[in-house]
Amino acid sequence: MVLGHESAGTVVEAGAAVATLKVGDRVALEPGYPCRRCRACLGGHYNLCPDMVFAATPPYDGTLAGFWAAPADFCYRLPDAVSLQEGALIEPLAVAVHIARQAQVSPGQSVVVMGAGPVGLLVGAVARAFGATTVVAVDIVPSKLEFATSFAATHTYLSQRVAPEENARNILAEAGLPAGADVVIDASGAEPSIQASLHVVRVGGTYVQGGMGKPDITFPIMALCLKEVTARGSFRYGSGDYKLAIDLVAAGRVDVKRLIDGVVAFKDAEEAFRKVHEGKVIKILIAGPNEKIDGDKLDAAAAPA
Amino acid sequence: MVLGHESAGTVVEAGAAVATLKVGDRVALEPGYPCRRCRACLGGHYNLCPDMVFAATPPYDGTLAGFWAAPADFCYRLPDAVSLQEGALIEPLAVAVHIARQAQVSPGQSVVVMGAGPVGLLVGAVARAFGATTVVAVDIVPSKLEFATSFAATHTYLSQRVAPEENARNILAEAGLPAGADVVIDASGAEPSIQASLHVVRVGGTYVQGGMGKPDITFPIMALCLKEVTARGSFRYGSGDYKLAIDLVAAGRVDVKRLIDGVVAFKDAEEAFRKVHEGKVIKILIAGPNEKIDGDKLDAAAAPA
Amino acid sequence: MVLGHESAGTVVEAGAAVATLKVGDRVALEPGYPCRRCRACLGGHYNLCPDMVFAATPPYDGTLAGFWAAPADFCYRLPDAVSLQEGALIEPLAVAVHIARQAQVSPGQSVVVMGAGPVGLLVGAVARAFGATTVVAVDIVPSKLEFATSFAATHTYLSQRVAPEENARNILAEAGLPAGADVVIDASGAEPSIQASLHVVRVGGTYVQGGMGKPDITFPIMALCLKEVTARGSFRYGSGDYKLAIDLVAAGRVDVKRLIDGVVAFKDAEEAFRKVHEGKVIKILIAGPNEKIDGDKLDAAAAPA
Amino acid sequence: MVLGHESAGTVVEAGAAVATLKVGDRVALEPGYPCRRCRACLGGHYNLCPDMVFAATPPYDGTLAGFWAAPADFCYRLPDAVSLQEGALIEPLAVAVHIARQAQVSPGQSVVVMGAGPVGLLVGAVARAFGATTVVAVDIVPSKLEFATSFAATHTYLSQRVAPEENARNILAEAGLPAGADVVIDASGAEPSIQASLHVVRVGGTYVQGGMGKPDITFPIMALCLKEVTARGSFRYGSGDYKLAIDLVAAGRVDVKRLIDGVVAFKDAEEAFRKVHEGKVIKILIAGPNEKIDGDKLDAAAAPA
Repeated sequence: MVLGHESAGTVVEAGAAVATLKVGDRVALEPGYPCRRCRACLGGHYNLCPDMVFAATPPYDGTLAGFWAAPADFCYRLPDAVSLQEGALIEPLAVAVHIARQAQVSPGQSVVVMGAGPVGLLVGAVARAFGATTVVAVDIVPSKLEFATSFAATHTYLSQRVAPEENARNILAEAGLPAGADVVIDASGAEPSIQASLHVVRVGGTYVQGGMGKPDITFPIMALCLKEVTARGSFRYGSGDYKLAIDLVAAGRVDVKRLIDGVVAFKDAEEAFRKVHEGKVIKILIAGPNEKIDGDKLDAAAAPA
Repeated sequence: MVLGHESAGTVVEAGAAVATLKVGDRVALEPGYPCRRCRACLGGHYNLCPDMVFAATPPYDGTLAGFWAAPADFCYRLPDAVSLQEGALIEPLAVAVHIARQAQVSPGQSVVVMGAGPVGLLVGAVARAFGATTVVAVDIVPSKLEFATSFAATHTYLSQRVAPEENARNILAEAGLPAGADVVIDASGAEPSIQASLHVVRVGGTYVQGGMGKPDITFPIMALCLKEVTARGSFRYGSGDYKLAIDLVAAGRVDVKRLIDGVVAFKDAEEAFRKVHEGKVIKILIAGPNEKIDGDKLDAAAAPA
Repeated sequence: MVLGHESAGTVVEAGAAVATLKVGDRVALEPGYPCRRCRACLGGHYNLCPDMVFAATPPYDGTLAGFWAAPADFCYRLPDAVSLQEGALIEPLAVAVHIARQAQVSPGQSVVVMGAGPVGLLVGAVARAFGATTVVAVDIVPSKLEFATSFAATHTYLSQRVAPEENARNILAEAGLPAGADVVIDASGAEPSIQASLHVVRVGGTYVQGGMGKPDITFPIMALCLKEVTARGSFRYGSGDYKLAIDLVAAGRVDVKRLIDGVVAFKDAEEAFRKVHEGKVIKILIAGPNEKIDGDKLDAAAAPA
Repeated sequence: MVLGHESAGTVVEAGAAVATLKVGDRVALEPGYPCRRCRACLGGHYNLCPDMVFAATPPYDGTLAGFWAAPADFCYRLPDAVSLQEGALIEPLAVAVHIARQAQVSPGQSVVVMGAGPVGLLVGAVARAFGATTVVAVDIVPSKLEFATSFAATHTYLSQRVAPEENARNILAEAGLPAGADVVIDASGAEPSIQASLHVVRVGGTYVQGGMGKPDITFPIMALCLKEVTARGSFRYGSGDYKLAIDLVAAGRVDVKRLIDGVVAFKDAEEAFRKVHEGKVIKILIAGPNEKIDGDKLDAAAAPA
């Protein structure tokens, strides 16, 4: 099975009916194609389409290939200000945009992000771009928090092996939020982080589950009930998310380049996957098999998740 | 400590500045008084006010008394079509209204209600009044389901001692909802019901926790994440809920009288509490100490929760 | 050019890929087919698609024909409780549903509807089904108001040749709404009605323009500004509107049959148009050229707008 | 009658029950005090309170005085990063914040602002802070557009004496928005600007009327209807607006200082009013009668509207 779902490339051929793209255009590739006919699709929530064809999700192959055929409206032309390498990072950024939208992050808010992996980092940056004035990064790895500070976080907290309530109290003390955080986003999927999230969020606040983890966990349900918290799941990305992700990069609001540790040739893809798996780097781009690596002139790229 | 928070009465005295009420007016009493100055109050969410003074919630006494002093704007005049006895039931109906609003129940929707106690029954009736076309009552007591059918439910399901997923499948089969329910409301607080709720709700649907129970439970968090469920807590009632509850009774949309099993004299209050505790009745009204019981002419009443 | 866009029929042939319909199914026909690919379509607002193919809207022919080909997801199966004749009225009912949704009519609200033609009548009925407790029909023709009272209106007002402010005051006095109406819907398109609408709506209320009329009118813009009115246009119908319209008919919430004045044979269509044009009837159905008229067994029908 | 409603000062005395402020605190003064008891107040829309006591609005005097008494929750403590002079500008900034919230300006959107006076300029800056990527300033005075460019606008358009449709086309061409603007805000109150607004806004977009003008104008109502535009009024400011305005200044997102042309002594107030009236300056601050002018150490200030 072929991997790959974070990718950008150059148009080499366009169907006769395609009016929005032409050969040579550089595009970011949204890797899932919905049915366009079900209730979810017609209702504006195509990410929830039950008949979605999604790259690198069995039984479908992924984008780590020399050529890729896609519907024109799921290929997003990159403006001159956005490189192909940045284009390959639009996918995880769209995940973060969707999470921030599910959380309805709005100007002046305080946002706590559990987990400082790629998605957590990008969620923090998107929250800043949405006008959040306080963004707290929480993780168990000090070096990730250092990076988070340099990227978008206004505060950080190194999670301790203590009760979720205690971590929650510490986070709020660290960020100067005695009444709780307006928004908490779990981008870790870890049970203790999710538990702490419900204690960090303020009365009437919002918590979004963005990270994947165990199907069932111990959950402080009465905190949700008594504080009238709104909890929401976030799944992939949908209408407008790719476009906004590109706009944020083009406007210099989110510097996705900083997440890229390098570009390797197609034949060296295995090494890239190993490095990411070992936690040594955040993202490595893989050049398409037909491409020569030449810095920003890269013509096709896919990043391991 | 004095009990009582579901009550109605007659105005016997009004302050000089009160323009909206006069002596003799019959009123339903909203039993919690917010500070009117905090962020929650000024933002339209006074039920979340941290300085709320709420009847029968320590350290505050309740309404089971001969006289009660209250701010005029928390005394709601009953129209002629609404009796004082019905007025005493506005409180639990306002709880149900608030839950249905938190769930944003809208016309044509399917709504599953876990628990067929007083709040669950009223939630079902409010959901119908909000235009829901399918309302499924779920409980473990067959007689409660019988009452639910006669009250507002279009379908019922007797919960089994099986896995939450199986109860969920059965509920959806019973109600003819292969794609899941638009809205699920837990009015039971029971762990298995909450677990089943997340399996009953459709992709992109809404689940509201209205019933009180254990602070921490095992929760299918990935169902929330992957189905992009919106989960919300519901706590008491707030802006506009009492008014709408009265409107629904006045318009004949919710027949709260059917929940009242009788009225007892103030001196027999203890007996009323015992009967309710034993599950023999749903609601018994207690006449105020200054009142004679004379059917619908009752002038002051409080119902045990 | 062929007319017709309010129609229902029976499936006589289904494509190989169609799983949701089979030959013999009775269906209501949604007569506009969007591109499914533009920003409006992917965003859940297909009624705003710039490339919509809409029946009987030049250059496209309409449904007044023996056979009609349509995408399966724009053919809505009628439940047994809904006749084909009612099915032909789903189109104008979907217009009314869309208007009520644009107005966000919610339970307990007061709704004033300007104009008691077919759409105004249906908007009133839908508002009731959405839980509105007060529905005021306004028109210049007394007989239309009589019908409105028997159909869904709780109050009526015969519009006078006076200033819009005075008509507005009279409407509010008639309906007992001293603080103004929560929602005002103009289904007339008439300048004086639109002007009165802005004076009828309460501070913070909602006004929806549903009726077509002159492109430019004299408009009380400062009433909108100072009262913080939300004004919204409503154009055709979109995601979920047809389904909800059918649900409302099936549940007996809106009795569309009462708007039908009769059924004529295809060859007598001209007579039907003349009668409607003369204002003698509300709706006349036209049987398909292949059908015999036999009451509710009618197999294909189209109603003049 | 005393003028003044844009003001900041220092606490010289606090009531016994005041816990949030102490003598010496510097505060921005929200100049309207609602009743806290009506439907609008309890519903979170206190700006729409019919019993509002608003400074400098007859019959109430304004803040251009040595001392001012106010409820503690309408005095907003300024963080160290915000000067008293900036504090006096929080009032017009809160007007702009409220407008942007009524327009629901969200990240990536295009926003056209009609009028480049103080409110229009601030709306543009707030829109940028809310994540708008395109902000177009429109005015009839070239020097105002120059200032707008240096303040927050990404594009400008000098309005011409042509049909509103033509100005609209030019604005969209200038800003590269062939499909129309997501949001249009009229901060001018001028009839031609409002007319052009409806032609500038995209299908499904939002137009907010923020500027005061003639009560009745010629208005392209069918553009609102057929494009399903959402139009909203904006009146003063409400829950959370002052706090967010202060946050935006503290975070450096809106540089209100640039709107201040100087500070004059209380005795020279008349001169300040004359200069503003002549259009020579945007805002001049007036020092309180008890204060010496000493740059940022100013202790009380009020700005002419």
